[in-house]
Amino acid sequence: MNFKTPTSHLILFHMAIGWAVCLSLFAAESELKSDLVKRRHAMMEKIGNRGMLILFSGDRRTYSRDVNYEFRQESNLYYLTGIRQHGITLVLMPGNSSRREILFLPDRSANKELWTGKMLSVAEAAEISGIRNVWSASEFEPFIDSVFYGRPYRTSRYSTTTEYRDFFSGLRQGKAEVFLLLESRPGLTGKLSKEYEFSDRLRKRFTGLQIKDASSFFHQLRVIKSPYEISQLREAIDVTVQAHLEAMKNIRSDMWEYEIEALIEYTFKKSSSYSAFPSIVASGLNATTLHYQSSQKQIHDGELLLMDVGAEHNYYAADITRTVPVNGKFSKQQAQIYQLVLDAQRAALAIIRPGLPISSVHQKAVEIIRKGLFKMDLITSEEGTQYRVFFPHGTRHFLGLDTHDVGQSERLQSGMVITVEPGIYVREDSLDRLLERGVTAKQLDTIRRSIEKYKSIGVRIEDDVLVTDEGYELLSKQLPREITEIEALMANNENSR
Amino acid sequence: MNFKTPTSHLILFHMAIGWAVCLSLFAAESELKSDLVKRRHAMMEKIGNRGMLILFSGDRRTYSRDVNYEFRQESNLYYLTGIRQHGITLVLMPGNSSRREILFLPDRSANKELWTGKMLSVAEAAEISGIRNVWSASEFEPFIDSVFYGRPYRTSRYSTTTEYRDFFSGLRQGKAEVFLLLESRPGLTGKLSKEYEFSDRLRKRFTGLQIKDASSFFHQLRVIKSPYEISQLREAIDVTVQAHLEAMKNIRSDMWEYEIEALIEYTFKKSSSYSAFPSIVASGLNATTLHYQSSQKQIHDGELLLMDVGAEHNYYAADITRTVPVNGKFSKQQAQIYQLVLDAQRAALAIIRPGLPISSVHQKAVEIIRKGLFKMDLITSEEGTQYRVFFPHGTRHFLGLDTHDVGQSERLQSGMVITVEPGIYVREDSLDRLLERGVTAKQLDTIRRSIEKYKSIGVRIEDDVLVTDEGYELLSKQLPREITEIEALMANNENSR
Repeated sequence: MNFKTPTSHLILFHMAIGWAVCLSLFAAESELKSDLVKRRHAMMEKIGNRGMLILFSGDRRTYSRDVNYEFRQESNLYYLTGIRQHGITLVLMPGNSSRREILFLPDRSANKELWTGKMLSVAEAAEISGIRNVWSASEFEPFIDSVFYGRPYRTSRYSTTTEYRDFFSGLRQGKAEVFLLLESRPGLTGKLSKEYEFSDRLRKRFTGLQIKDASSFFHQLRVIKSPYEISQLREAIDVTVQAHLEAMKNIRSDMWEYEIEALIEYTFKKSSSYSAFPSIVASGLNATTLHYQSSQKQIHDGELLLMDVGAEHNYYAADITRTVPVNGKFSKQQAQIYQLVLDAQRAALAIIRPGLPISSVHQKAVEIIRKGLFKMDLITSEEGTQYRVFFPHGTRHFLGLDTHDVGQSERLQSGMVITVEPGIYVREDSLDRLLERGVTAKQLDTIRRSIEKYKSIGVRIEDDVLVTDEGYELLSKQLPREITEIEALMANNENSR
Repeated sequence: MNFKTPTSHLILFHMAIGWAVCLSLFAAESELKSDLVKRRHAMMEKIGNRGMLILFSGDRRTYSRDVNYEFRQESNLYYLTGIRQHGITLVLMPGNSSRREILFLPDRSANKELWTGKMLSVAEAAEISGIRNVWSASEFEPFIDSVFYGRPYRTSRYSTTTEYRDFFSGLRQGKAEVFLLLESRPGLTGKLSKEYEFSDRLRKRFTGLQIKDASSFFHQLRVIKSPYEISQLREAIDVTVQAHLEAMKNIRSDMWEYEIEALIEYTFKKSSSYSAFPSIVASGLNATTLHYQSSQKQIHDGELLLMDVGAEHNYYAADITRTVPVNGKFSKQQAQIYQLVLDAQRAALAIIRPGLPISSVHQKAVEIIRKGLFKMDLITSEEGTQYRVFFPHGTRHFLGLDTHDVGQSERLQSGMVITVEPGIYVREDSLDRLLERGVTAKQLDTIRRSIEKYKSIGVRIEDDVLVTDEGYELLSKQLPREITEIEALMANNENSR
């Protein structure tokens, strides 16, 4: 090799980059693996020696007829195994002498692999998860029989006498506990039918057995993010910031909402990501619908465009909202509402630190928005709930493997990742809603004029925040939020004013 | 207005385009509406006077935790109503004197509309569907009670004495029939739990009642496409052709499969379409997996790239596959396999005309591929099933509201739309599979050499075809298929040879 030419420098440079990428991927993988071991260890402490945790893979979801949506592993099962393949089952039995972790894996099949691609081998599943006992999925039922009924089975590895002693004695004394995912709100989370069927079956046979919901354990563990998880969230957030920038630079009036959405999701996908939730790209009046998803309206000069989107990268979700003027310049009324939302967000961010009651984040945003709405004559009292007509949602949620991530905690702690997302929406039915909240006939005219003045304005600003020992880090800080910044960024757009 | 300047000509031009688009949208809408009336009429003829059809809306599908995938209406319900909103129920009772069609629509709610957007009003649902009786979804249960139990209800519109006479007398004589969607293969189609729960309930109470599966009626009706449906399929196909062209022009080695997929789906989305099924973008060995979806491999010089993608436009699906050389030029072996697949497709297309037994399309493709594989020493006999090692799937499926559209017919008929998609895949386990199909030890060496020669080559060519009175029309003809055409198209790509 000749190292003198510029080309060869380029080659060296690319080699260096290549190695860096390769090493960082390798590092991430080994970081995940050691995370998985720690997570299962922490979970086993919660389950206890007479407990048993069983996690089933989620079902495939039908799109239409024989077409399924792309499969996504159930988050908690992924959290403990790192495995994305359909059909696995995880069993944790902390009381066992060995074999405290067992992963049941579908058998590879040449015909299935011909149709849908490579399936994990036992060795690969063990390598990814760090679980030594990887057994065939077909052995799950015999395994359950052996644990609960003491039935002998064809292989010696289910020998119940020593292995399951603690669980067994618990079963005899009516103290054994089986933990399943039985999270409430089946309408929202999708009924986990396997879990319910399984628990029904067990309940019918063992009166002494306690079947418990494992969800709260996961809520406790998942709420604090490891350095590996934070690095994955950073990547998801970076991709989402890029998508927002692409959108802002390309907005022009008379485009359609779906064209902007196309650009955003293209930016996700070419970065090996995809939408963590259906994108919200809402112009004009549509911006006053909180979860507007259809994206079928043409975007007009003079309107605001609200974009609430998030990339899911390596199973971790970002969630960022920006609201920008279609023509590149906020009108006076738009700027007033926008600035109020931004002030509320700034104030809510400013108080973030470990130990703060979580509810304070929302209270602070409410405090600022209430004052502002009162000054603008959109509400007649700073007391009560009138503000909720214009600010009807919460200010924060956890972020992680799920967009609305699980979490149980009264106070903020270092390592939590949350969104901070105040908003104001002046909907057409605002007046009716205010009348239900104590606005008198005398005040009606003033309010009506203000609503007319700000009508159809919907603004939300949402950023992603890591709670640190010192306070917080704004993970999405690369994306402009200030009015002047946004106007400067959009000044070169084709139809900017 | 001054009509002399070029600008004003431009304005006139845009006005003309605008009106044309507007009129064509209007025409499509009124065409759909008259289609819907005809479809329900045809369905009622099949149900008969003592029958009742009940179609429930599909469920929302959970992506993860509280995030749902974007909702898609159940295809048969959409086919009869044109309504995409969740939660509707359709009842057809052909024996009724009036009110033969009833649509149950969820009540609008200000709070739901604040969160997820506008819901259809009764008038809008009636306008879209052409159904005059649009009732509140909350009236469905009382309605059922009144029909089956003759219970009086608060409004007079359920007066059973005259309205449901035919159905009632059928019920008494044990001849009433209730048609539900009870299609088999619940594992594939997703168990339609509402239907099964409902039919269980009815079965327990009425021994004389016959509960039947309505699926075959839909299979019979949906298999022939109306001019409106053909126009929608053309649009879906045109968008898919554009996406393929974009991909072909932008492929270069060292890109990642997901980058090409991003470009394809961007083209869909900016045309107000989306993927009818998870895109297959498969390079090298991945092209030998029929439904490879993960798209996580880097694309290399010398490989083939197989793209099997389809836009869903206005609920109608396209489905087109092209296989192209990453570097713009087929190798000798790639060209041999490609040409054989193309010859098989051409031969299968050539025989398409009304009256042809549908199975002939596949038989013709098999005939050509068998001969070619035998010549290439990839199989040792033109008889038997050895060819299935390399061509393991069917050659055609129906296309329509579903990608694998429903259809019951022995023979091709004018108005059917089908795909024609032969393929050859030289997988790593081809030799093992051949051994199961009668290849002798003596022949093994020859075959092994051929498999080595063509290894990792996967080719599929899929086009969309309308059966016409005269024969057929190739709907996807705008997209190059010939080796020379593809190489010419890709000659300007950055890294083409």
